[in-house]
Amino acid sequence: MTLEKTTRMNYLFDFYQSLLTAKQKSYMSLYYLDDFSLGEIADEYEVSRQAVYDNIKRTEAMLEQYEEKLLLFKKFKERKELLKKMRELVADSAQTEEAEALIESLEKLD
Amino acid sequence: MTLEKTTRMNYLFDFYQSLLTAKQKSYMSLYYLDDFSLGEIADEYEVSRQAVYDNIKRTEAMLEQYEEKLLLFKKFKERKELLKKMRELVADSAQTEEAEALIESLEKLD
Repeated sequence: MTLEKTTRMNYLFDFYQSLLTAKQKSYMSLYYLDDFSLGEIADEYEVSRQAVYDNIKRTEAMLEQYEEKLLLFKKFKERKELLKKMRELVADSAQTEEAEALIESLEKLD
Repeated sequence: MTLEKTTRMNYLFDFYQSLLTAKQKSYMSLYYLDDFSLGEIADEYEVSRQAVYDNIKRTEAMLEQYEEKLLLFKKFKERKELLKKMRELVADSAQTEEAEALIESLEKLD
């Protein structure tokens, strides 16, 4: 798995885990956060490796669907970027006009 | 219905409508945004007033459940409040330390 995909799934899991079932949360958490293999999760839960694989694939698809609908990760990244710029401005000081424009952009994100 | 509840439902609908079915969206939109009565919606869709009422009640409960899990409306209000303070600071100018503290609070919200 690419690092990029792992990072994305970690974020999506972080944003939407409250919408998952307890089992989905456990599998995803072991696989993505604790770096368990599919086989290790299967042993832990006494199910087949295939069952774990299918569950994780379905959960990944659900997380992508939630992101498509709610865009929490996308907005998070946009907000982070704007806040980074604002922080630079504030450190710079007295760039009032540009700071106000940034704040407006921020407000429109919600 | 209280104004407070109407306002809350308008916001929750705004945040979570992408998670509703087409029918739920239509009923909620007519009821909360266009101020149709239950009877008018029932006539429009050729169903009973009770069916419309039940659907809307279930949808309201779903929206509250999503809010309980994702807190988008709560965070939205907190963010608005922080941004309002930041805007005042920027207008004030040169309150760098306080502005940085606000930005940090903002970042923690995500």
